[in-house]
Amino acid sequence: MQNIAQPQPVLDQLPNRRPKAACTLGIVGGGQLAKMITQSALQFGCEVVVLERNDHSPAATLARETVIGDWDNPESLLRLGSMVDVVTLENEFVDADSLAALEKFGHRLWPSSATIRLVQDKLLQKQALEKAGLPLPKFKAVSEKNEILEAAKEFGWPLVLKKRRNGYDGKGNFTLRATTDVDEAWRQLGGDSNGLYVEAFCPFTMELAIMITRSQTGEMANYPLVETVQHNHICHVVKAPAIVPAGIAARAVEIARKAVETVGGVGSIGVELFLGRDGQVLVNEMAPRVHNSGHYSIEGCVCSQFENHVRAVMGWPLGSTAMLAPAAVMVNLLGSGKGSGAPQGIDKALAIPGAHIHVYGKSVSVPGRKMGHVTALGKTMEEALGISRRAAELIEFGEVA
Amino acid sequence: MQNIAQPQPVLDQLPNRRPKAACTLGIVGGGQLAKMITQSALQFGCEVVVLERNDHSPAATLARETVIGDWDNPESLLRLGSMVDVVTLENEFVDADSLAALEKFGHRLWPSSATIRLVQDKLLQKQALEKAGLPLPKFKAVSEKNEILEAAKEFGWPLVLKKRRNGYDGKGNFTLRATTDVDEAWRQLGGDSNGLYVEAFCPFTMELAIMITRSQTGEMANYPLVETVQHNHICHVVKAPAIVPAGIAARAVEIARKAVETVGGVGSIGVELFLGRDGQVLVNEMAPRVHNSGHYSIEGCVCSQFENHVRAVMGWPLGSTAMLAPAAVMVNLLGSGKGSGAPQGIDKALAIPGAHIHVYGKSVSVPGRKMGHVTALGKTMEEALGISRRAAELIEFGEVA
Repeated sequence: MQNIAQPQPVLDQLPNRRPKAACTLGIVGGGQLAKMITQSALQFGCEVVVLERNDHSPAATLARETVIGDWDNPESLLRLGSMVDVVTLENEFVDADSLAALEKFGHRLWPSSATIRLVQDKLLQKQALEKAGLPLPKFKAVSEKNEILEAAKEFGWPLVLKKRRNGYDGKGNFTLRATTDVDEAWRQLGGDSNGLYVEAFCPFTMELAIMITRSQTGEMANYPLVETVQHNHICHVVKAPAIVPAGIAARAVEIARKAVETVGGVGSIGVELFLGRDGQVLVNEMAPRVHNSGHYSIEGCVCSQFENHVRAVMGWPLGSTAMLAPAAVMVNLLGSGKGSGAPQGIDKALAIPGAHIHVYGKSVSVPGRKMGHVTALGKTMEEALGISRRAAELIEFGEVA
Repeated sequence: MQNIAQPQPVLDQLPNRRPKAACTLGIVGGGQLAKMITQSALQFGCEVVVLERNDHSPAATLARETVIGDWDNPESLLRLGSMVDVVTLENEFVDADSLAALEKFGHRLWPSSATIRLVQDKLLQKQALEKAGLPLPKFKAVSEKNEILEAAKEFGWPLVLKKRRNGYDGKGNFTLRATTDVDEAWRQLGGDSNGLYVEAFCPFTMELAIMITRSQTGEMANYPLVETVQHNHICHVVKAPAIVPAGIAARAVEIARKAVETVGGVGSIGVELFLGRDGQVLVNEMAPRVHNSGHYSIEGCVCSQFENHVRAVMGWPLGSTAMLAPAAVMVNLLGSGKGSGAPQGIDKALAIPGAHIHVYGKSVSVPGRKMGHVTALGKTMEEALGISRRAAELIEFGEVA
């Protein structure tokens, strides 16, 4: 620049202190989902306070502050509420009564405690979705072993016995192939103390998912239908968009939107679906939060699921969910051994052009634990898959057995 | 997911403490450039420590820690160095001897103190670039007023008198149109105490800039040539790519790469250029750091200037600088009044589809201060310009006069 000198801004005449942020967001939980929500909030000049059991969670470094406490403790939640403009959460396993107390004391919570109450109990969730006319695998509450055998008569084998609460990544599920499996399933899932239900096994040809962001006034922005590929019950690969006939994709979007409306979700909400052998789309289950199947949207869409979540819970307009490339693939980075949460091989993986590498910054690696992910865009699914897989194979967490 | 239940990861058997991060990066300065470098570092699971004069800088919330101290104090710099793997900086106005002390004590610093020493003194910078055969406006050191008049005989009027150090956003420059301006220019720029030089006025038709990231082993990744539009000597709008004949763009890239090599830059380095009326490309000046003209790359390119800066200073491979759309426009959000650093109107601006809004989180707004920016991509420059301008017009900082 060339021209006449300008006076320096008169900063010294103004109070020099921590700014009043555009907003302060409280997040119940400090894991990788909270970290990625925080990254979006920080872009808008918002600040974040997380509630976690320790001060070294993935989100802790980015957060202005960590409230150390238990998610289910109403006092901890109220302390968080008093420090922020809006509270949201990164997991649905928070006691709904404690969340309701937060609302009772006038704190804004999105999604609401009513939504969390409905979704966190998979039996209540499925009953609500069935009542709304949505297609689901057949299911039935079971309070004693005998009822499993009754369901078998009605649904046939195999059957899936599931915990009503706190199941994720295949934990809390047991597939029964015959009467002889009932005792072991009941024991493993703690049927005498945990609420369980049983579901007809769905012989799906593809597992699908859709992220939807819903605003406080009911507008919805849906991301494309994606295919999720699981190994050992943990999501390994997400392909966006799912390669299915247009009619099926449209039907899946319609179902997912109605499911989110049914539970009154606000924020980014995940809907997992099965594509049956007959081309039927069934709801598997919902996650009332940002979701692993939407991580590709950070690089793959105009606005990520995280940015749209922040917009929704702050009461701001939703952004575009359009994809920036014909295909995007996300591959999870799972701990291969027990050890440090710092990655090995990141320098090699960064040499793969187009690989977007995310490391969550967890303290500790455990086999199968989600430690990071890689996303790649492509003109074709093959291209995106090739890039993301090649990069993911080069990164390792923990000592390798 | 449905299948046999898996045991919980044995997290409880492992030490539960702050992780060893993939890397720890130290940044001298905690402004918006440090904030955006930090956002990229965090994605890789790195942690950041900033050195700033207070604990509420834009980067402070994201950083693991702020070392409160003066940039030019070798003790503060050494304290920062002892806490991190690599030190980098967000501005070039740091005493080069203090930076050299950091290297002397074995700390890694990129760009090096030698690069900073050369670039922070614009006279030395220009002498080095001239020696390397790069095209520049004519310039000359002046140690007394009389030498300005001698330069005027040689270069003609108008002339630009500039401070050798600490000039930015038009501060530290004075355009002289006749002999009668000399006294006022000398007084305003403090010619008796500051090193000054004089430059031939360049009647440019366009101001251009290029970001280049250079690795520690000398590889370079260059971003596209962009046009920068200034008002009142502050960059308001950046258009990527600059709409110029291909031959001019190629020449500009060649010049910028040679300039970065000449100063031995490592990390993301900005090169500002003039496009003369005769189609000649001249170097205006360099910034040995990430630069306002490269902010569009966050959404506009595969890897942003910030991500590539982190890759370069960590010694990792550089990423692709390819654009994700035919056009990207960035519009700065400047303080319109004196007051809070929190934005007004962000909810309205977020309703403009495709507007990516960044708020830096500064304590205080002052007229003309850079408070944030908006980026939009487009199939055409007009589309990107329309979206980013419309959104930017809706956001205001500080009380409006």
